[in-house]
Amino acid sequence: MNDVIRNRLNQLRRIMAQRNVEAYIVPTADFHGSEFIGAHFKTRQYLSGFTGSAGTLVVTADAAGLWTDGRYFLQAEQELEGSGIKLFPMNLEDSVSIEAFLNDALSEQGIVGADGRTISAAWALELSRALGPQRTLQMSEDLADGLWPDRPPLPLDPVYILSEQYAGRSAADKVAWLRGEMQQLQADIHVIADLAEIAWLFNLRGADIPCVPVFLSYAVIGADYAKLFLDPHKLTPETRDYFNELGVTLLPYEGAFQELSDISKARVLLDPARVNYALYSVLPDQIELIERDSPILLAKAIKNPVEQENLRKAHLMDGLALTKLLYWLKTTPPEQLGTELQVAERVNRLRMEHEHCIGPSFGTLAGYGPHGAIIHFEPTQENQAQLKPRGLLLLDSGGHYLEGTTDVTRTVALGPLTEEEKKHFTLVLQGMLNLSSAVFPHGCRGFHLDVLAREPLWTQGLDYGHGTGHGIGYLSCVHEPPIGFSWLRTQRYDTGVLEPGMVISDEPGVYIPGSHGIRLENQLLCREAEAKGFLAFETLTLAPIDLDAVDMKWLDESGRVRLNSYHQRVYQALAPYLDREEREWLASATRAI
Amino acid sequence: MNDVIRNRLNQLRRIMAQRNVEAYIVPTADFHGSEFIGAHFKTRQYLSGFTGSAGTLVVTADAAGLWTDGRYFLQAEQELEGSGIKLFPMNLEDSVSIEAFLNDALSEQGIVGADGRTISAAWALELSRALGPQRTLQMSEDLADGLWPDRPPLPLDPVYILSEQYAGRSAADKVAWLRGEMQQLQADIHVIADLAEIAWLFNLRGADIPCVPVFLSYAVIGADYAKLFLDPHKLTPETRDYFNELGVTLLPYEGAFQELSDISKARVLLDPARVNYALYSVLPDQIELIERDSPILLAKAIKNPVEQENLRKAHLMDGLALTKLLYWLKTTPPEQLGTELQVAERVNRLRMEHEHCIGPSFGTLAGYGPHGAIIHFEPTQENQAQLKPRGLLLLDSGGHYLEGTTDVTRTVALGPLTEEEKKHFTLVLQGMLNLSSAVFPHGCRGFHLDVLAREPLWTQGLDYGHGTGHGIGYLSCVHEPPIGFSWLRTQRYDTGVLEPGMVISDEPGVYIPGSHGIRLENQLLCREAEAKGFLAFETLTLAPIDLDAVDMKWLDESGRVRLNSYHQRVYQALAPYLDREEREWLASATRAI
Repeated sequence: MNDVIRNRLNQLRRIMAQRNVEAYIVPTADFHGSEFIGAHFKTRQYLSGFTGSAGTLVVTADAAGLWTDGRYFLQAEQELEGSGIKLFPMNLEDSVSIEAFLNDALSEQGIVGADGRTISAAWALELSRALGPQRTLQMSEDLADGLWPDRPPLPLDPVYILSEQYAGRSAADKVAWLRGEMQQLQADIHVIADLAEIAWLFNLRGADIPCVPVFLSYAVIGADYAKLFLDPHKLTPETRDYFNELGVTLLPYEGAFQELSDISKARVLLDPARVNYALYSVLPDQIELIERDSPILLAKAIKNPVEQENLRKAHLMDGLALTKLLYWLKTTPPEQLGTELQVAERVNRLRMEHEHCIGPSFGTLAGYGPHGAIIHFEPTQENQAQLKPRGLLLLDSGGHYLEGTTDVTRTVALGPLTEEEKKHFTLVLQGMLNLSSAVFPHGCRGFHLDVLAREPLWTQGLDYGHGTGHGIGYLSCVHEPPIGFSWLRTQRYDTGVLEPGMVISDEPGVYIPGSHGIRLENQLLCREAEAKGFLAFETLTLAPIDLDAVDMKWLDESGRVRLNSYHQRVYQALAPYLDREEREWLASATRAI
Repeated sequence: MNDVIRNRLNQLRRIMAQRNVEAYIVPTADFHGSEFIGAHFKTRQYLSGFTGSAGTLVVTADAAGLWTDGRYFLQAEQELEGSGIKLFPMNLEDSVSIEAFLNDALSEQGIVGADGRTISAAWALELSRALGPQRTLQMSEDLADGLWPDRPPLPLDPVYILSEQYAGRSAADKVAWLRGEMQQLQADIHVIADLAEIAWLFNLRGADIPCVPVFLSYAVIGADYAKLFLDPHKLTPETRDYFNELGVTLLPYEGAFQELSDISKARVLLDPARVNYALYSVLPDQIELIERDSPILLAKAIKNPVEQENLRKAHLMDGLALTKLLYWLKTTPPEQLGTELQVAERVNRLRMEHEHCIGPSFGTLAGYGPHGAIIHFEPTQENQAQLKPRGLLLLDSGGHYLEGTTDVTRTVALGPLTEEEKKHFTLVLQGMLNLSSAVFPHGCRGFHLDVLAREPLWTQGLDYGHGTGHGIGYLSCVHEPPIGFSWLRTQRYDTGVLEPGMVISDEPGVYIPGSHGIRLENQLLCREAEAKGFLAFETLTLAPIDLDAVDMKWLDESGRVRLNSYHQRVYQALAPYLDREEREWLASATRAI
């Protein structure tokens, strides 16, 4: 029996009963639909005891359920034990949806509650349709707030300015451009709740989400005003001046609700998938909604020439840090390699040696042997394995620099490999190289090209259960819509047409449960090809690929040529910054094969 | 001045005036949404003088317009000269849609006329929405019918039974299966107007459309009855007996309208894109519509094991005919080769030598030199070119056999080629081989794989303006939904998931206007791959690929191996049926390179 969790749920149930709420939904979300969330928002974890990064808790008077995806079935089962919360696995043939569960659990005129700030307007409207006109959503209050005595407060870290030498374009210019876009859409007002969009628009960054340099805020842009809603403690005299010059009015974070409820007749542009339901709900009836992506979504994904040039620098810094780590991994006596966590900490330290590095762009994944087959294995004190002089170590890490964000995966042989490990490694390499060499006409979307990375694996009856790539932000969220390489699920992260200036990852893999995992990941910059009307990729990532894991039997001639040419680039770029021993090692690690 | 056409349009306008019709639409269509149409239905051609295979005429009191696509801009311009009909090019940036033209031309409460049997219900409903609630569609009468004194009558060719040894499954079994599907969809009645669907369901074929072995009819299926509406002259004592045994009631062709208007309360399954508006309009208000694809659409596309085995035989017969033609082309003194039309007639004759061949599956395309660059060039007495001992001849042809339908393209060197022609030929070959060797998991659609055929061309800055492939019917229409390889337009012909048993063409090309055209086309049968959960293709087509046009510089190692292995199969399959000289030639034409 897990009495701690049972008590918390029963406390919530008492408040639900007072409010006549029959079911209460606690998603894993902040007020901005962010992919990752800060400590203040981990209510779902507090109430359920489940620590995974994704999951939705639903509580009724006599039951509770937790919905999560395949990455977390095992972990959730263990962590929920004794809590009385039932695990509802998602994305299976016989999965029960939250909607179906609620339709079953609710009375005919039942009320569903939630903190409406943690639920997107799009989902709330969908839920409302699914539950029928007799049932009500009551989402104006966070019923769990008072139950959590030591709840971490909202963060107060200061926001800082990303100067034009890094952003490539002034905030004044961006705001003027946005007003032009609004005019074309005949929008009087644009409501922005997506934190990466706000950070991009104003050339500001913050530290409110671990590994994501954004700050909690809402923005409302009109034809002749711009309002930013954020905690004033986040401001410095410098940023106050900056906003003043930019003509941005600063208002308290919660002021956004009053602001929207005060709008009189106007055409309001917003994306219901990226604006929370509570905010959406205060909009008066008489306004006319233009429901679509913010123009910022696309503009932000297309890196400007300055950002592109900066990214090349960021990948040079990043490649040096990773190459030093690889050198250390390949030349250190096995007994001194330590654990997965120690390797993760080491690569993070190596990145931070550069003063422009702000921190890791996500929690470093370092999986040795069977751990490599767990796609998002993040080592901790509790689960870390000792590295040994054999088999494969999968290392997926990245950094935030003033010059942009990186994300790179290398899989390294720590000693002898099996034939199968080498075969798998080489097929993954072949797929990564095939995709990175693609030439394609304008109009292609990621899912048209995904097969290029997968075909070497498919031909051998192998595949991997994740997308081949995702867009990546500029000193922003490491996953950035609207592009990706995902043939199977062509949704939010793989809907956009590939445009010059977009940056996207290329990361096929193979995962053999209980044995080994392989992933190789480079970042690609989309650009004009030589032939008119065609596009191609420039590989930004600069780090050697472990030749000890390559079996030439599985690499075709074009793959061999591409690997050699990539390795030549890597050596030429990095060698000048390495000491003699590292340089000699790199020369051998990038030798032509 | 083209007085003939002007007179015809003015006659139409007089009738329009009597009916208060302000605009009259004449599409290129029969009553069944068929891709190709018989002579009786060529009203658009009669009224406009434009002979192309696609186009829509719209006539108002003081204007007339013809909408057609890029294949026909030049031809339409010439043929419409002096007629007073304005050409409206489609699919261009600044194209004016028919809807926009009508909105402009019509008065506020204007009436739009058409023969509602020639317009799909889906389009009529869309048109009605676009024109607004004040305007009316009046589509119950063919105003042009009386204007056309020598209009060809509806065809009276008899229908014939395709026995189970060819169809692989009895009509009784198919009808029972369809009723099961209807039950699952909770449909009481299924209305079928698509001619290929009716032919498939009843294992019947006809000859009502040139090159398409179907017959004009409607079918209405209930839980305990089946009604077929067709001209009784098409019936023989044998087919009457067949229908009798099958429990199918035979009614006159036009009786379908009465039948549908007599339906009382029922749930009716039909696809508004494949049922004409006139028929759709007679349905009483009280019925409940289930608007979706017929279950036949998918079932027909998945060839059963008997059909698959028959198709292998059809492709053997077909490969022999084409190989004899290729032998003749490559061994005949240049001065005896004749014209494009003579080659087309020769390949048709060679096919018809087999008693199971019913005729060509489409008008044979034979384009020599610059004609090859015109994607659908069909030679006639007027436009045919003389073949010369140099350059490339593109030959795209196919046959209908009791064992199934074929469609194959070979491009042949008639003498010396330029470096560029060889390069283009080899890149097309590489693309065709890459796609035909694909291995992919269940769930892939054609547009996920299209890049495999295009990448060798894209990499060289080349592309082609058509899909890479289309589904193909079994002794039915040569273009069959719902599959295709079309990354750019993922519509009707490229929406389906690839399933074992589906047959699809693989036909990349290169077209250099004024110079040469290349296309290579094989038919592929989708089947289970060796690896569990994966699919692959079996190449059905058996005909040599001209090695004289291959430049090894542009073929990679896997392409070389695949070509040799394909040629070995071709030789082994065809050799036993050839005479000594043909066999010796084929041995050389399929030699390993």
